[in-house]
Amino acid sequence: MAKLKVTYFNLPAFGEPIRLLLAYSGVEFEDVLIDPNNWLNLKPKTPFGQLPLYEENGKIINQSVAIMRYLGKKYKLIGADDWEDLEIDAMAETFRDFIIKIAMYHYEPNDSAKDKLKEPLYKETIPFYLERFEKSAKENGGYLAAKKLTWVDFFFASMIDYISLMGKLNIMENNPNLKVVYDNVMNLPAIKKWYEKYPLSLEFSKVWLESTRKPGKE
Amino acid sequence: MAKLKVTYFNLPAFGEPIRLLLAYSGVEFEDVLIDPNNWLNLKPKTPFGQLPLYEENGKIINQSVAIMRYLGKKYKLIGADDWEDLEIDAMAETFRDFIIKIAMYHYEPNDSAKDKLKEPLYKETIPFYLERFEKSAKENGGYLAAKKLTWVDFFFASMIDYISLMGKLNIMENNPNLKVVYDNVMNLPAIKKWYEKYPLSLEFSKVWLESTRKPGKE
Repeated sequence: MAKLKVTYFNLPAFGEPIRLLLAYSGVEFEDVLIDPNNWLNLKPKTPFGQLPLYEENGKIINQSVAIMRYLGKKYKLIGADDWEDLEIDAMAETFRDFIIKIAMYHYEPNDSAKDKLKEPLYKETIPFYLERFEKSAKENGGYLAAKKLTWVDFFFASMIDYISLMGKLNIMENNPNLKVVYDNVMNLPAIKKWYEKYPLSLEFSKVWLESTRKPGKE
Repeated sequence: MAKLKVTYFNLPAFGEPIRLLLAYSGVEFEDVLIDPNNWLNLKPKTPFGQLPLYEENGKIINQSVAIMRYLGKKYKLIGADDWEDLEIDAMAETFRDFIIKIAMYHYEPNDSAKDKLKEPLYKETIPFYLERFEKSAKENGGYLAAKKLTWVDFFFASMIDYISLMGKLNIMENNPNLKVVYDNVMNLPAIKKWYEKYPLSLEFSKVWLESTRKPGKE
């Protein structure tokens, strides 16, 4: 049997979709959790100075979305044809853009720059994206693309609590179809079982996000 | 025959790899060039407020890397198996990260923030990435991944002049294997023919980049 290993911080964030895709498949894998305080020692030893890393039979690779797509193919969480896969890919990239915009605000070190980012982010960017994600979820019957469960739903569901915490948002409150996407992943028996066994706590994320939150006016 | 359309600014940047993949395939396509000054009028009419857009038989999609991957599949510019496709995808994402780091410096509006970014970007980040790209190009025999011509080589070759201009770099000078990647794409007969017919000038890019360059000390 293939030997699988995931290496990421001891946080949900970009490691969590990979963990959940593997949990869904039911395969055993090594879940290596890195303390962010030890990261600078490990960084130069990684292929491109980044986590997460995915290892399969001794071959190692970086880039979370690329890894999700690979696991999606492996576990039949893809579209019916190449155009549907393109729609799934485009949705994943757009969702990542959305995350990055929130993260850039969270991590902005300069007070006045952070202040300038706030209004456009909360009044324009976030509503702009959420409206479109919600529309996609509705049109695709409770999934983000391709009218079926695919790896991009795992990406969304596994990161949304973390993003909500980071952006101080309640994303699902006013977006009932996005709540369905979330539930469609989180209510899968294999995912419920995974969280019973390994409750990677959002509490730790909260401490981490607080410790990395840059001043600004919030 | 499928009706194909690409919509992007009248610049190379993220539209160029898509144009070149289509040029390589030899299919006819409509190449819609948008003046950046008209962008704010068009933006609300696009699916996620972004260019490039790709249209095929009336279906429209955003996200440049997702589109490149789709065209890569269509025109047999992919790996031999799913792991190779993962390596191609990871390389593409890493190359995009690299571009974004240079663009964030170029577009940083705050003088002192830009000043702080400069040294880590030029002394650490850029050499870190280039060393690894060069190593990949060497190991893969003049291609970035999978030891053969794939869509990620089109991504690299079609954007490197633009990035060099933006970052005031000569990326290929000290990276002979990256030069081979570039030549392997640019010397393809279909690509040579494309540029003879449609010489999308780097001169315009130069004017554009100068006009968007934020002060800082350079």
